[in-house]
Amino acid sequence: MESLYVVKIGGNIIDDEQLLSSFLKKFAAIRNKKILIHGGGKLATRIAEKMGIPQQMIDGRRLTDAETLKIVTMVYAGYINKNIVARLQAMQCNSVGITGADGNSIRSHKREKAGIDYGFAGDIDQVDTSWFIQLLLNGQTLVVAPITHDGKGQLLNTNADTIAQEISKSLSSFFEVVLIYSFEKSGVLKDVENENSVIEKLQLGYYNELKETEKIFAGMIPKLDNAFKAIEAGVHKVIIGKGQELDMLITGNSGTTISHE
Amino acid sequence: MESLYVVKIGGNIIDDEQLLSSFLKKFAAIRNKKILIHGGGKLATRIAEKMGIPQQMIDGRRLTDAETLKIVTMVYAGYINKNIVARLQAMQCNSVGITGADGNSIRSHKREKAGIDYGFAGDIDQVDTSWFIQLLLNGQTLVVAPITHDGKGQLLNTNADTIAQEISKSLSSFFEVVLIYSFEKSGVLKDVENENSVIEKLQLGYYNELKETEKIFAGMIPKLDNAFKAIEAGVHKVIIGKGQELDMLITGNSGTTISHE
Repeated sequence: MESLYVVKIGGNIIDDEQLLSSFLKKFAAIRNKKILIHGGGKLATRIAEKMGIPQQMIDGRRLTDAETLKIVTMVYAGYINKNIVARLQAMQCNSVGITGADGNSIRSHKREKAGIDYGFAGDIDQVDTSWFIQLLLNGQTLVVAPITHDGKGQLLNTNADTIAQEISKSLSSFFEVVLIYSFEKSGVLKDVENENSVIEKLQLGYYNELKETEKIFAGMIPKLDNAFKAIEAGVHKVIIGKGQELDMLITGNSGTTISHE
Repeated sequence: MESLYVVKIGGNIIDDEQLLSSFLKKFAAIRNKKILIHGGGKLATRIAEKMGIPQQMIDGRRLTDAETLKIVTMVYAGYINKNIVARLQAMQCNSVGITGADGNSIRSHKREKAGIDYGFAGDIDQVDTSWFIQLLLNGQTLVVAPITHDGKGQLLNTNADTIAQEISKSLSSFFEVVLIYSFEKSGVLKDVENENSVIEKLQLGYYNELKETEKIFAGMIPKLDNAFKAIEAGVHKVIIGKGQELDMLITGNSGTTISHE
């Protein structure tokens, strides 16, 4: 099977012009088929503040009320998405910027739980891969903003990590998918205070051992549980590390590589 | 040749929820292949005001400075474009929202003239139709925001009427293109004060006659000159009228139809 790189970049890269520039150069240089999924960064918060829209935080997460949804749609699907596309075009990387509403590609439903208001947050129901495959075979790179839709006319704010994971899983019967999560750290650390304690390779047995002996930073556990779920669902490899070291993440010279064997 | 409808809607429809809703229903109901090009509406100005960004007007046109480009990219390519796409999806009209940066589809250059600052305004150099044709043959409807790019990483604000015209011309060797300009009036009026004075059919000879005898509203002349240029360049028909009467514009029961014969 042909390789496909699905790369998710976080706000720390989006917010830093130098990191973004260095990341995009390395991303554009990947010769294989590729998909970029970007999060939001601080611009949405700054614009909400400038417009005098109060941001409600619930358990450390921003509540997506109607006004906040408007802003994240503008910032993620408009400003960030289209600027990344224009910059990739300048590097001869022919890209197409989309949300899950485009081509009806990612359907979700509004998260509902009795007594809890999540606002316009979407949980993914289905990724329609046929159009994605067509674009990729066309030589086009996808740039995905973390907005999906419910099929009834409503856009929904959706976690970019989850989008990356669902896209990777759904395309894994067609491509050998390498899913790369870029974040602030150099990889999964044995000692959260020490950037040099990166675990280079992580398989399920070793991971369970580390979890049992509490030798892994608790905050990483949901991310890693998800990574192993992706592997079980057919994703070839998950790599976690710094986006600005993308070239080295791919060659295994940086970050943590999570795989079956 | 197969028919293709290219419909441009103006700010008056974007700004009015009822008009937009009625328009989208009629647009979604077109069974032929179709492209929607939308302008901006007043939301960009309102957001600029809320954010305290002064809008510079030069000869009645808004200067697209860097901050204004940011806002129009957010509003046009983000908020308006993605909401239209989500609403069309709810009507079983599978659509894809794009700018000219996506798929490198519309290349432009920054308008420059000695002594005049147009800001980040783009004049179109080239429409790459191959991807548009592929999407259309795929059964997808295009929703185009009036943002293009220069191929060097710069997004540019571009007139939506011009985008509609250039797309129509470039696709006319592949489709029988009907270009529809939706605006506030019922069509080209003989008497600008009288909505019942719509000229139903306009051919070049008659148009020149009306121009010579000054029986046509001066403000319409650039629009009509462009319409005839589109016809000369291979566009089958241009129809001008109210977007909310889209069904009747198509059947010739409303608006002004401009054609060769």
